[in-house]
Amino acid sequence: MLTISGTVAFDSIRTPLGSHSKLLGGSGMFASVAASLFAQPYLVSIIGQDFNPDYLAFLTSRKIDLSGIKRSDGLTFHWSGFYEKDMGQAHTLATDLNVLLEFDPLVPTAAHNSRVVLMGNFDPALQKKAILQFKKPELVVVDTMNFWIENSIDDVRAMLALADVLILNDQELRLLTGVDNVIKALPEAIALGPKRIVVKKGEHGALMYNGSDYFMCPAVPITELVDPTGAGDTFAGAFSGYLSTVPVWDELAFRRAVIYGILVSSHTVQGFSVDGIKSLTLDKLEAAFETYKSRSMLPTSL
Amino acid sequence: MLTISGTVAFDSIRTPLGSHSKLLGGSGMFASVAASLFAQPYLVSIIGQDFNPDYLAFLTSRKIDLSGIKRSDGLTFHWSGFYEKDMGQAHTLATDLNVLLEFDPLVPTAAHNSRVVLMGNFDPALQKKAILQFKKPELVVVDTMNFWIENSIDDVRAMLALADVLILNDQELRLLTGVDNVIKALPEAIALGPKRIVVKKGEHGALMYNGSDYFMCPAVPITELVDPTGAGDTFAGAFSGYLSTVPVWDELAFRRAVIYGILVSSHTVQGFSVDGIKSLTLDKLEAAFETYKSRSMLPTSL
Repeated sequence: MLTISGTVAFDSIRTPLGSHSKLLGGSGMFASVAASLFAQPYLVSIIGQDFNPDYLAFLTSRKIDLSGIKRSDGLTFHWSGFYEKDMGQAHTLATDLNVLLEFDPLVPTAAHNSRVVLMGNFDPALQKKAILQFKKPELVVVDTMNFWIENSIDDVRAMLALADVLILNDQELRLLTGVDNVIKALPEAIALGPKRIVVKKGEHGALMYNGSDYFMCPAVPITELVDPTGAGDTFAGAFSGYLSTVPVWDELAFRRAVIYGILVSSHTVQGFSVDGIKSLTLDKLEAAFETYKSRSMLPTSL
Repeated sequence: MLTISGTVAFDSIRTPLGSHSKLLGGSGMFASVAASLFAQPYLVSIIGQDFNPDYLAFLTSRKIDLSGIKRSDGLTFHWSGFYEKDMGQAHTLATDLNVLLEFDPLVPTAAHNSRVVLMGNFDPALQKKAILQFKKPELVVVDTMNFWIENSIDDVRAMLALADVLILNDQELRLLTGVDNVIKALPEAIALGPKRIVVKKGEHGALMYNGSDYFMCPAVPITELVDPTGAGDTFAGAFSGYLSTVPVWDELAFRRAVIYGILVSSHTVQGFSVDGIKSLTLDKLEAAFETYKSRSMLPTSL
C-alpha cells in the first residue's frame, strides 16, 4: 500500500511554448499521477470549493484514492509563475496559499498500514505530522525545496529524522548541507537521517547515494521541453510507486526506481500539467526502460 | 599507429586551489599523455627555444614520439588564465602565441600510415593541412573550440568535412549549429561531415551520437576539483588512444572509448597540468572502469 501527501493546486504557467491558467498542479497531484502507473495510491491533500470537477474525475480515473483529500470552503491553492528560455528555474509571480493555510493532513484509517509513504513537497512540520500517522511504514520517501530549507530548517531536520529516502535537486542539497561539492555533501545529508539520497539534476539525470556507494544515471535525450513543472514530483511519484510494488528493496530495486523516476519525469516536461504523462502506460514505460538501457549501458553480453 | 597534433604550451593558471606558472600544457600535449596510456603516439607540434628540458624528458618517458615536434627560435606558446570557484569556465588573461604563429604541422614520414589520427584543438586550417598528410587514416578524430567557430567558421567546416568523429562540448555544439537544444543540434553537426559526435558535458558526463542513436554517460563522482585545464584534451586523447588499439570499431568499442575519456579526464581535473594523470596506469584505469560500470549500470545478471 502506498500513500502520498502533498499539495493539489491550480498552476498558472507561462513558458516560451505557451501560457495556461489554472492547470491541474501540485506536488501531491503530480506524484500521485506518476505513482498510479504502478499502484493505486492514497492521496492526502486539501482542495477548495472552486476545484474543477473534471480534475477530480481525472484523478479518480487514475485509480487514485481521494478519501484523504479534504474539500474546504476556501479557494484552492494557486501558484502562478513563468519560465525563461532555458527553463532551468521557475520564477514565481504569485503564491495564493488559500486553503493550504488550514491544511492539516489526515491520513485515512484505511491507509494507516501503508508500506510505502511519500511526502511530496509541502510544509515540513506537516510532512512530519503526516508521517507519524502511519503505523509501521517500511519506506518513507520525502521531498522538500529551497523555501523550507531557508525558512524552516528546524522543521526540515525534524522531518528528515523520520525519512528513509530524501529526494532533492543539487542546489537544494548544497543549501541543506552548506557544502558546495555535491559528492562531499551527500554524507552530510545522510547524517541528517535518511539512509539514501537521490539527487535530481534535471537535464543531466540523477545520482543516488546509499551511504557508501553511488548510482549515476544520465538523463533521457529530449528535443521538446514544454514545461518543467512537476518533473521533480513525478520523479518522486514514479520512484515510490515502483518501489511499492517490489517485495524486497535491494540495490537493484532502488536503481530501477531511479530510472523509472527519470523516464516518467522526462515525459512530464514534454507537456503542460499532466499532458505529458496522461497517455503513458506501464507498457510504454517498459519499452522506454529498454531503450534507456540500450542507450546508457554497455551491451550486457560483453 | 596513432598520431596526434595540437599545441604544446606553457600554462600559467590560477584556480581557487592554487597558482602555478609555466606548467606543461597544450591540447596536443594533454591528448598525447592520455593516449600514451594505451599506445605510443606521434605528437606533431611546435615548441620554442625556452621549452623546459624536464618537460621533454617527461613526454619521452611516456613513450610519445617527439620527432614531429619542431623546435623553433622563438618562445613557446604561453596561455595564462584563471578559474572562478565553480571552475565551469576558463578566463583568459593572456595568450602569447609566440611560435604558434609559425606553426606549420609536418607529419613525420614514419607516421604517414597512421590508422588513427587525432587533431587536438588548434587552427582548423592547420588541422586540415595535417590531416591531408596522412595516406589512408581510418579514423580521424577532431576537437575544436568556440574561438575557431566564431572566427574561422569556413576553415572549421572544411576541416570537419574530413573528420570521422567530432568531440566538443555542449556550448560549442550550440555555437557550431545555431541550435539550442543539444539533441536537436546533433544531426546538424553530423550534416557537416563527421559520422559521430561526442559531446563533453564536464561534471555531467558525455553523450555520443552515431547518426541514429545515443550513448549517454554520466560523469565520475569527484570530490576534489583542482584544475579543469586539459580535461577535454585528455578525454579526446584517451578516446583516440583506446580506439587505436581496437581492431574493429563497433558500437561497443566507441562506447568503451567514451568511458575511458570520462575516466582519464576525471583524473586530469584532480591536479594541475598532468599531475592528476601522471601516476595513472592501464591497470588502475581498468579498475576505475569496473567501478564506473558498477556505479552506472544495472547488474548485468538481471
